Order: sequence, then structure tokens, then C-alpha cells
Amino acid sequence: MQRIAMLGSGFIGRFYADSIQGLRSQDKVVSVYSRSEKNAKKFADDYGCSHWTTDMEESVAHPDVDVVCISLPNNLHETAVNLCCKHKKAVITTKPLGRNAVEAKRMLEAVEKAGIFNGYLEDLVYTPKSLKAIESVKNGAIGRVLWAKSRETHPGPHSDWFWDIEQAGGGCILDLGCHCVELNRSYIGKDIKPVEVMCWADTQVKPIDAEDHAIALVKYENGAIGQFEVSWTFRGGLDLRDEVMGSEGTIWINSFLRTGFDMFTTGKGGNYVAEKAESNSGWLFPVGDELNELGYNHMFNDMFSAIEKGTPPKETFYDGYVVNAVLDAAYRSAKSKLWEPVQLDIWRGRVGVSKDSHLVEYDADHYLVKEEVTHYGAKKLILKLKSTGKIVEKVVE
Amino acid sequence: MQRIAMLGSGFIGRFYADSIQGLRSQDKVVSVYSRSEKNAKKFADDYGCSHWTTDMEESVAHPDVDVVCISLPNNLHETAVNLCCKHKKAVITTKPLGRNAVEAKRMLEAVEKAGIFNGYLEDLVYTPKSLKAIESVKNGAIGRVLWAKSRETHPGPHSDWFWDIEQAGGGCILDLGCHCVELNRSYIGKDIKPVEVMCWADTQVKPIDAEDHAIALVKYENGAIGQFEVSWTFRGGLDLRDEVMGSEGTIWINSFLRTGFDMFTTGKGGNYVAEKAESNSGWLFPVGDELNELGYNHMFNDMFSAIEKGTPPKETFYDGYVVNAVLDAAYRSAKSKLWEPVQLDIWRGRVGVSKDSHLVEYDADHYLVKEEVTHYGAKKLILKLKSTGKIVEKVVE
Amino acid sequence: MQRIAMLGSGFIGRFYADSIQGLRSQDKVVSVYSRSEKNAKKFADDYGCSHWTTDMEESVAHPDVDVVCISLPNNLHETAVNLCCKHKKAVITTKPLGRNAVEAKRMLEAVEKAGIFNGYLEDLVYTPKSLKAIESVKNGAIGRVLWAKSRETHPGPHSDWFWDIEQAGGGCILDLGCHCVELNRSYIGKDIKPVEVMCWADTQVKPIDAEDHAIALVKYENGAIGQFEVSWTFRGGLDLRDEVMGSEGTIWINSFLRTGFDMFTTGKGGNYVAEKAESNSGWLFPVGDELNELGYNHMFNDMFSAIEKGTPPKETFYDGYVVNAVLDAAYRSAKSKLWEPVQLDIWRGRVGVSKDSHLVEYDADHYLVKEEVTHYGAKKLILKLKSTGKIVEKVVE
Amino acid sequence: MQRIAMLGSGFIGRFYADSIQGLRSQDKVVSVYSRSEKNAKKFADDYGCSHWTTDMEESVAHPDVDVVCISLPNNLHETAVNLCCKHKKAVITTKPLGRNAVEAKRMLEAVEKAGIFNGYLEDLVYTPKSLKAIESVKNGAIGRVLWAKSRETHPGPHSDWFWDIEQAGGGCILDLGCHCVELNRSYIGKDIKPVEVMCWADTQVKPIDAEDHAIALVKYENGAIGQFEVSWTFRGGLDLRDEVMGSEGTIWINSFLRTGFDMFTTGKGGNYVAEKAESNSGWLFPVGDELNELGYNHMFNDMFSAIEKGTPPKETFYDGYVVNAVLDAAYRSAKSKLWEPVQLDIWRGRVGVSKDSHLVEYDADHYLVKEEVTHYGAKKLILKLKSTGKIVEKVVE
Repeated sequence: MQRIAMLGSGFIGRFYADSIQGLRSQDKVVSVYSRSEKNAKKFADDYGCSHWTTDMEESVAHPDVDVVCISLPNNLHETAVNLCCKHKKAVITTKPLGRNAVEAKRMLEAVEKAGIFNGYLEDLVYTPKSLKAIESVKNGAIGRVLWAKSRETHPGPHSDWFWDIEQAGGGCILDLGCHCVELNRSYIGKDIKPVEVMCWADTQVKPIDAEDHAIALVKYENGAIGQFEVSWTFRGGLDLRDEVMGSEGTIWINSFLRTGFDMFTTGKGGNYVAEKAESNSGWLFPVGDELNELGYNHMFNDMFSAIEKGTPPKETFYDGYVVNAVLDAAYRSAKSKLWEPVQLDIWRGRVGVSKDSHLVEYDADHYLVKEEVTHYGAKKLILKLKSTGKIVEKVVE
Repeated sequence: MQRIAMLGSGFIGRFYADSIQGLRSQDKVVSVYSRSEKNAKKFADDYGCSHWTTDMEESVAHPDVDVVCISLPNNLHETAVNLCCKHKKAVITTKPLGRNAVEAKRMLEAVEKAGIFNGYLEDLVYTPKSLKAIESVKNGAIGRVLWAKSRETHPGPHSDWFWDIEQAGGGCILDLGCHCVELNRSYIGKDIKPVEVMCWADTQVKPIDAEDHAIALVKYENGAIGQFEVSWTFRGGLDLRDEVMGSEGTIWINSFLRTGFDMFTTGKGGNYVAEKAESNSGWLFPVGDELNELGYNHMFNDMFSAIEKGTPPKETFYDGYVVNAVLDAAYRSAKSKLWEPVQLDIWRGRVGVSKDSHLVEYDADHYLVKEEVTHYGAKKLILKLKSTGKIVEKVVE
Repeated sequence: MQRIAMLGSGFIGRFYADSIQGLRSQDKVVSVYSRSEKNAKKFADDYGCSHWTTDMEESVAHPDVDVVCISLPNNLHETAVNLCCKHKKAVITTKPLGRNAVEAKRMLEAVEKAGIFNGYLEDLVYTPKSLKAIESVKNGAIGRVLWAKSRETHPGPHSDWFWDIEQAGGGCILDLGCHCVELNRSYIGKDIKPVEVMCWADTQVKPIDAEDHAIALVKYENGAIGQFEVSWTFRGGLDLRDEVMGSEGTIWINSFLRTGFDMFTTGKGGNYVAEKAESNSGWLFPVGDELNELGYNHMFNDMFSAIEKGTPPKETFYDGYVVNAVLDAAYRSAKSKLWEPVQLDIWRGRVGVSKDSHLVEYDADHYLVKEEVTHYGAKKLILKLKSTGKIVEKVVE
Repeated sequence: MQRIAMLGSGFIGRFYADSIQGLRSQDKVVSVYSRSEKNAKKFADDYGCSHWTTDMEESVAHPDVDVVCISLPNNLHETAVNLCCKHKKAVITTKPLGRNAVEAKRMLEAVEKAGIFNGYLEDLVYTPKSLKAIESVKNGAIGRVLWAKSRETHPGPHSDWFWDIEQAGGGCILDLGCHCVELNRSYIGKDIKPVEVMCWADTQVKPIDAEDHAIALVKYENGAIGQFEVSWTFRGGLDLRDEVMGSEGTIWINSFLRTGFDMFTTGKGGNYVAEKAESNSGWLFPVGDELNELGYNHMFNDMFSAIEKGTPPKETFYDGYVVNAVLDAAYRSAKSKLWEPVQLDIWRGRVGVSKDSHLVEYDADHYLVKEEVTHYGAKKLILKLKSTGKIVEKVVE
């Protein structure tokens, strides 16, 4: 059983608490901190927390608290992390870890120096679909991974601080790209180094300083490509999709807008309010169980079980740091219009990995280009002569 | 926290235990009973049960046990229920409740006489999608329910006893139809009486005595129609779909084969084994988190929370009895080829409900048949004169 | 090249003319008949017909006309057919052939006596998806057909005469069930006799005399089951789906609401009008090319090519007659609540077909019930002893 | 009626001829040229061409020929075009127009100097779904277009010459990217200038010199982004999808692998051969009518109707030239790793278009950032103060 201090009482804090205290859970949020007394009290009431405060350190230091869960705007993460270090409390923090890799690195070094448990709450690698898909990839189901794309777009975040570049540290790249980068890494291999990033970003719709739409390619040392598509200007709901291409297979995951639940309503039958949809009538696509589908349940299970076992969780501050480093390169690239190197002062994965060979041997003299069954039933081979590079066609009946 | 005795160590018992002892759960299977010593020991090992036995009563009566969970072949439910009555233990049992309504009624009367908590483990009304859809229907999202169909078909059950009509009590109607009937009831209204049933059933593929394919219509007192389509001969995996038509909307739920997770594999990339699929290569459609998607987590949450609150759960032995009564009528109908009345000695819902009117007033003289916007932008009305019944068309520009 | 007289200038006549005179077509509608002079002129203008009239016989008898295409309300089909017989013109008629089998039989006998070409315009068996699926079934792709279901539901027809039971002859069973029955027959085998029908029908929503919702099961002589689900009360658009279960496979066809074209619009971007949708904003599901997707192009190609080759088309008045006979049985059953026999005075398919065996030999002593690969990789067999009927489980590692 | 000379008798020539001589078509392939006598004869036999030859000029010059259709490898397009100029024959050519913009420009100038009809056979902008979607965009259904992505990936082309970089001129960028670029342009506006391109390309799987996988971003003068994803290494069939994001809506088109036709087959039911699928068993996703779904029918209709009306078709050599210029920039970018400018010596669209404003006025003092309905029913506004840029939240109940 874990007793949690929740720092922050907003949208994400409530989502986390719903998951932590979910179905038959043994865990409990025992303290809540909010900058606003009203919000702190309300949260404590709603979730049955015995303690609430507007003094962050009081919550962190509370003797009943085992784990501190940071659900604050990005610019407050470091302060909170430092308090956890000071009071030697296990800490888990919402994404992104920092507003940039410099902040992230400081937090990583701080928790490691303090020797405290640290978890990075990247929920989307914990969705049931992701967990199963990533495991399938590890088992070889799709061969060698060539490309992993993650897309997260919606009509913009709920809370005001996201739109303020000072508090948030960035726009949709930082808000949503952090999910995508970690998903890409999980498919390509978290031990494979992200090398360089090319990113396009623009403010196309919203009257803000930060970017509201961005697309990036991330090159990995083994030649695989990660891609993210993020936006705060998408119309139609929350679009959350991943695609992975492998040499022997393909994965398509749709985590929100098309999950096997379609509802049409004229809107005349009652005062029905659809959630996260952009309208309350017409065709709607609800998600059965958001907490589970978005990975919160499996994420907290991994975190708390790791604490109990004394092992690191699947996602640590180190991962948060790598993600920030990739996003920093994306921001630089969006300005410089160049492929920007990912600057990783700390790298704990494999080094010197070379690109996989693309030569498939057919026989002593040929490489295999393609094999297909024609519509008249014969097997057609397209081969390449090793000696001359000439392409030849061969039909085997 | 609940301490459970699991009666039965087979496929469904394991599924239940996985859910009960799932992510961060406070509940625990403390005792397991199996007819086979080997299986009992294996189960106890796998799930960390402190007690195992081949004597059913020993498990039921064990002082550590709060709740007995019956995961036995259908013909053993009654024996187990009676032991729970004798030892005054809360009891929850897998579906169907009985092999027929006579058995089910005896069990219902027994538990009520004994005054013990009784829960009917109909998981499919607890799937996250069902829970949300049923709530939407209650909130009026699709108006008046006209038709609710549930389909459950697959290539046949895993365990041998299902195929033996003596142990199972029937074929796919009893095995799968019980889910469908309760889903139908949940959409149409559990207080609306099922009146009569027309059923077709046949043994089309399997060399068995029981039916391997059946379709039935169930008429409810308010004029709504329930429908089930069940089979042990479906090819392609587990087909689990619901459709609901309302006067103001539509619901389509796909719970298994198309849930937003598509994988293609040539099968050459590794020894990947797909679960519940009929092959290990080509396009596969995994489900992210079966325990959650199939409703087990929300079902046990409802059961155990109800025990703790001292309230009845959403699904009780009474519901199991109603389902058995509907299925009995289906079996009679399959033989008689007639609409067979549902015989309900015990009925606790509304009585004397009449069919809803189908007359929608347009103005003093007309009923409204249809209103549509033509492709040239005008509004076209089709009306019916109240006086003569004549249909007239009227274009409002 | 074919020169066509179009009888009727309404919704379906226009759809047909759009197809007949479609992309680069050599065929031409040369004459149009309408009861209304205004409509006849308008149609002639729109489609470039050289001749228009309010006298049906004038159109049929016109010397330029090769083929008469009947696009009239159901109660006028027979009159029109008789004129074609009189003037020895090839005739093709919209569905259903008659309001009942008595009418249909008279028309069938009339055209055969007159020796004229006769085609039954059942477009849905000609959709590209149906054509390919039916051919796959014939080639054995799904083994023995066990069940074929066709569903056509929408919020009600466009033209007023459909709602008038005198002109239409019935409600949604006649209007939509005719499509479904012929699709079912095409999958099960058009030479397999439909034997009996069980039908539920009701008027649930519309203020009309005819049924606005119906479901029927049609038993075929080989034990296969056809099913139709039809309604004029469906909300959400045009729901057009087929499902076929075979002993070795499955087919799912969605012809309208989910064909790979999803559009979301806030409705604020312009005066966009969606077709056949129930709203102009939110998620919409357009169909790319309705004429082709609904089978019109392939249907007229078959008809006119057959005329030129002197062969019968795929669908003749005989098929229309069989369909009417099945629907008659459905109407009788909806009243009698019994399985009603299909009365076929004329039957040109196979007779005395018996039900297919459901016994699959495993070895000399056993039938095979089921074979599956367990999650631990072993092959599990469920067998039935021929001698005793006992079910046994056998694991082959 | 048009009489066509087909230059080339391979895969694409046959596809074109199937479409040109399709259902009830008035058009006819009257002459065929192939480098191989055997293939020319075979094609002439199969399609009933009165004339065949191994001399290209003979076919072009043949007096019966109205239009020349070029279906040759990329390196032979220019030779064929020049013959059409010489003999003043209308010419339509398969995609891409040239192997690069230099070739394409020469062809464009040649046909314009010769004053002959010229059509660019970019079929994918003519698919029924594309036609309808593009029209919807023009009508404002999705507001201002922000991003248009087109994806075409498959396991590699059928014919050997594609794999030979000399004949083909490039790899999957040239083969597939040409489709994508023209689709992007059609959504964004064909009068909007493509300005610069960033492209990643690699040879990840095939033993060839050309790229087998590439992703590119194309920036347009109005700030919109086009994107293509192309590959010859995708597993699972032909993946053909488009996505468009607009300020007021979204479009998703799936043209091949998920079009509402799902089939499962164990493969035991007969010698069924699936087309364009990577296997003949398991879940397969056939397309109903490839010729129509891939746009061939609507494309030839546009071409031949334009010839008859004396107007240019929707797609001309000019479009082919623009596409080649964009792809040239993509190739340069893949090497230089820079955003490369699109070099367009000839540009006939708008010039000097500036980026659309992203400031939406809320009131005199504020811009509107976001408006949403909270789950408790209130309207929440996120606004930006014009004077200070500060973000404020406002709840309107």
C-alpha cells in the first residue's frame, strides 16, 4: 500500500487520483497541496484526503506520505523535486519532466544524488494496447522496426497555464511531443540513441506565441525513424494514434476516436453531455474506460510495485531527460531549419550501433528484391545480381 | 478487503483470479477448491492461495473466507450454492446461474432464505463500453429503445465439459445467450418484462448433441425487441458486438475484433503467438487489456463494494433466474417453432406496461411521418392526415 | 448501345438515368414518361431525352426505344409490364417486382409468354463488394455457408407513395427486405430452395399502417439460414451491412456508413450540405461514388450486355418472383406468429436437397469437435467417441 | 467516342485498358505498341485491338488513333511525347510525367508548342472519395486547410523496371510521391505555390540503389503543409490513406486496406486466391472495384470529355511538371539535409500569397484562444489580452 501526496489539484491531479484510488485499490492519496486553499479543500473532500495545505513543503514532508506525485505546471516541477530530495521522499512526476533538458538534467542528478525513487509519469507507453504492442515488437512480431510514428492532436488543452509559454515552457511540442517521443523510443528500442531531429513547427490557428502544430522526424543510430505529429488545432476530438512499420509487419493503434464504440444521437432524446467530444449530437465516439485506456492504471501499478520491490520503474527521470533532450533538438530545428543533433550528456544505452544491412541474400549470385505470387498463381522473383547490380525478373511455376 | 474462496481452477477461475488480484488490488483469493489435487495445488501456487483442497465444503467453510466465487461447470452450481447457504457465506457465481430456470429458482430461493449476499457474475454488462452506453441510454441519448441486439460467437469453448450436454445443460444458447439476454435487458430496462421468445437453433458444424448456432427474438412488454445471435462455429476469433436502435439514436459496440488495434505479421519475425486468434500471421486484432475490456474488473468492484456497503450488486441471482427463464423459452421455441411465453414465477419489475405510441403530432390535423432536408436545401415534410389517414407531402422552403 | 424509355421521373428514375448515362456510356435514355407533364419535361431537359410524354404506352411503343425501364410505384409495375409485352419491348423493372407473389407470378408468366427480355433491377447483388464476395463464396473461400444476414435500415424513404400502403403494398419489409432476401440467396445459392420464414414486424415509431421495423429468418432446404433486418426508423443515416458465416470463414460488408471516408466539420466553415446524412456537422461518413457503390453501374452493364448477347441477365423476373414469395411468407408469419412455408408454384432450382452433415471424422473411433493451440503452445483436441458419444480432451505436444 | 493507342502492354497499360473499355464504354483501344511482339499480340488479343506493333511511331501515327496513352517506363515518356507532337495526336501519360523537372519541362513545352491536348494521368486525385473530399474542402467544409498528408506504401512494385534506377529515375519518392504531392496540392489549392521541401529518404530493406522509404514536408506559400509518406517496404498490402486538417474540420480517407469489406478465411475451403494481399488466409481486406476506387474511370472520363469539349482536363502536363519540381526538391533535400526550395521556372498560380492570420478576435480587448463546455455544463473561455499578451480564463455559466 502506498500513501501519496498529490501536488496540484487540477485536471491531471484529479485524473491521477481517480486512477490511484480506482477499483479496489489499496493505495490512497493522503495529502493534497494546491496554491489555492479553496481548490485544496475541494480536492481533499472529493478524494477523502486527511490532509490538505497551501504550503508545498508541508505536504511533501508530511509523515504519512510515502510518495509524492507532482501534478503541477511545468515551471514548478523542479522546486517540487528538490523538496522531495530534501525530505527523501519517493517522487513521481507528470510529463514533461522539465521545460528543457537543462532543467531535466538537474532534476535527474538531484534525485540520483539524493538516492530517492524517481518515476516519470509517461502514461501512453502504459496503455494496454501499447504494452501489448511493444511486447509483440520485442518478440519479433514485426521484424526490424523501420519507422514508429505517434500522433497526438486535439483542439487545445483545458487549463490556462498551458497557453502561457512562461509557465508551460513551450507549446504542443512540449505538451504532446513528449508522449510521442517516448512511444517511438519504446518501439525502436530504448537503448538505441536518438541522433538528430528535423522539425517543422508553426502557429497556424491560435493567437499565442507558442507553436500550435508541429511535425518532426527523429533519426536513431540504427537507421530507424521516429516521427511525431502534434497539434492543438485538430478538430473532431482527441486523435491519438500510433503506427509502426517493421520489416516483417505493421502495427496500427487507435487509442481514442475509433475504439469500437460508435453512438449516434439526434440530441433530442435528453440532456446528454458527451465528454471530450466537440459536440453533443451526431456521431460520437466515446471511450469505454479512459483511465485504463490512457494507461494511468498500469502506470501507477508499475510505479508503486517498483517502489515495493525496490526496483526502478519502466519510466524514470532518466527517460524524462532523454525526451527533453529530443524535444530541445526539435525546437532548435524548428528555428534553424536544420537537422539538429540530440545533445545527450548522459546516455546509458548502447553506443556505436550501425545501420542494419538491407541486403537479403537469395543465392550465391543474387540478392532478393521481391517475391510475389502473380494472379495466375506463379511465383515471381525480382533479383539483383551481386556482380553487376542488374535487376532481373524470374518466374518460378 | 475481501478474502475469496475460488471453487474451480479452470479457465474461468484463472481469469477471475487474475482480475480479483489485479493491479494494486486489496482483495485476495485465499482458498481454492478443485476436483483434481494437482490442479488445486497448481492454482494455489500460481495465485499465492494459502489454502487448497479437493473438498468443496472445506473451502466454503474455511474461516478465512469472506466470499465464495463459483467457477464450476453448470451442473455443480447448485451444490456449491447450497454449501454457501449452509455456511452463511456471501456467494457469487459464474454465468449462467442454472442449467434452467427450475435450478435457478431453487438457488435464488435458497440464498434469499439463507439471507446471504448473492451476486451473478454477468461480466459483459460491466464492460467499460457497456457501462457507459447503458448510462447514456438511461440519460436519453438515443430516445426510446426499439431494439437491442447482442452477438457473441466464436469457434467453440476451451474446456471439454462445455461440449457435454449433461454437464453444460445446453449448447451455445446457454453458454453465450445468457450474456446477450442480460445485455438486452440492460438496454431495454431491467424492469421491463420479457414476454415471449422465438428461437431458431441448429447443430450445423460440430458433431455434438447440443446446438452450435442459434438466433432468437425476445419480445418485451413495452414493444421493444431483444435479439441474440450466438454460435460455436464462427471463424475469425471472438465476435462480440452489440447494437441498439433508439427512436433518437443508435449504439454500436465492438468489444473484441475491432477495437483500434491492428497488427500485421508475416510470421517470419519471431515465434510470436497471438492469443484468441485463429492464426499467428496475417492481420491480427489483439485486445489491449482483456480483463478490463471483458468487464471483470468493474464486475468484481461492484460485487465487493456492494458487500462492503451492504447493498445488492447490479446483478443478483434474481437476474440470473430471469435470464434462465428467457433461455428456457428459447429452447422450447427452438423445438416447438412457436413464440414461447417466458415463464416467470418470480417477477419484481413493472407490470402491465403497454406499448409506446407511435403517433407523433405535427399539428392539429396531421401526424408527422418524416422530415428531411432535400439536396436542394428545402425542408420536405411527409405528413399523415389524422382524419383520413392519407399521406401528403409538403415542401417548406 | 441501348436506347431506354424511362417510366417514372422520381428519385429512383433519376438515379437510374445517372447511372445509365454515366461516365463515357454508350447508352441513352431517349424517352421519359411521367404522370406529371412538368416532371416529364424537367426530366427530359435534365437528361437530354428527345421524347417525353404523360401517356405511358406512347413511351413504351416509341420506335426509338429498345428497352423499357420501370421506375414507378409498386402498384403500377404490372400495367407497365403488360404494355411491354404488348409492344414486345425488353423490360427491366425496379424492385420489388410485385406487391406480392401473385402479381409477380402474373408478370413473370406474361413476359415469358411474350418472349421478351426481362430483368429484375436488384442493385445490391451488383455492388462491387457483393460481386466480389459472392464470387469468393462460390470459390470456397468461406467453406459451406451457414448463415447470411443482410441489414438495410434508414430513417424512411424519400417519396410519399412509399408511406401509402395501397400504392406500396407494404412497408419496410417490401421496400427493403427484397434487397436482403436476394443477397441472402446469392450467398446461400440461388438454386437452394427457401423453405419457411419466421418474421417479427411492428410499427414502432411512424404513424403509419405498414410496418416500420422487421426482422426475419428464412430457412433454406440445405439447413442454411437467411436473415433480414429492415427498418424505416434507424437513426444515423443509411445502414447497409451484410454478414456471412461459413464453416471456413466470415464475410463482413459495410456498404454505406463506414467505407473508409470520415469527415468532421464544425459547420462553421461554409454552407456545406452533406448528402443522406442526418446532420451537416460533426462526424459525417460520405460515400465516394454512390452509383457505383450501390451497384447501379454493374447492374445496367449486366442487363444491357445480356440483351446484346441474347442471354438472360443475372437477375430476372423469376428471381423477383421468388423474392416476393419469400416476403409473402414473412408477412403471413408476422401475423400468424408461425414459421410460414414459402409457397413457390414455380421453382427452377434444385429439389430434395438435404441438410449437410455436421460430423467431421477425426479417426476411426472419433469425430473432431475442436482443435486449438493453447497459450503454452501445445495442440489441444476435443474429440467425440463415435461409439458412446463421450467427449474427450487430448493434448498433443 | 475516343480511339486510343496504348503505348506499353504491361501492368499499368492493362489496368488503363480495363478502365477505358470498361462497363458500357463507348471508347476503344484500337492500337497497341510493345517492345515485345509477343506482348503486343497478347494485349491486342485480350483487348480486341485491331492493330498492334513493335514500332512506337507506327502506333502513334496510325490514322485510326485519336489519343495516345503512354504506359511506358519513365525513361521512355519523352520519346513518346515527342512522337505525339510530331503527329499532332492528343497525348495522355502515366505518372510521373518525367524522371525530373528538366524532362518534364521539356515535355510541357513540346506539347504546348505543338498545340496538342495533354493530360497527366494522376489517378488518385480522381478517386470518388478524393473528388468528393476535394469538393467539400472547396465548399468550406473544413475551413482553412492547415495540413494535408498522403500516404502510399506497399511491399514494392510488380514490374522489374521500377527497381532499376536508370529506367525509373528514382525509387519510391518518384513512383509514389508523385501521387501524394498532387493530392496535397488538390486539398491545399492548386494555385498555391509549393515553396520548399524537407525530405528524409533511406534504403532500409531492399538491396537497391534507390530509396525504399521516404517522408517529406512541403511548405506552401500560405503556410499550409503538405506531407508524403511513401515506401516499398510496407507489410500488409497496399496502404493508401489521406488525412487533411482544417481550421474547422478533418478528413480521413482510406482507399484500400479498410474500405468496409472484411473477409476471414481458414484457407481450407478452396483454392481461393486473394489479390494484392500478402496472404491467402486469415483476415483479408478486398476492395470492391479497384478500377473505380483507384480513380481510373473518373480520370479517363475527365480526359476524354475534355478532348471532346475542347477544354483542358483537370490534370495537365503543367501539373505533372509542378509535381516533378517538388519531387526534385525532395531528392535534393534528402541529400543536403536542408529545406530545399522548389524551383519552378513556370508557375501559373497565385503569387505573393501571405500566411493566414492566426488571430481570432473575441472582443475589443481579447483574442479567443479556446472555448469549451466543461463536464459540469459551463462554458469556459481561454482568452488572450491584446494589450499584454496575458492568458486569462473566464467561465460563463
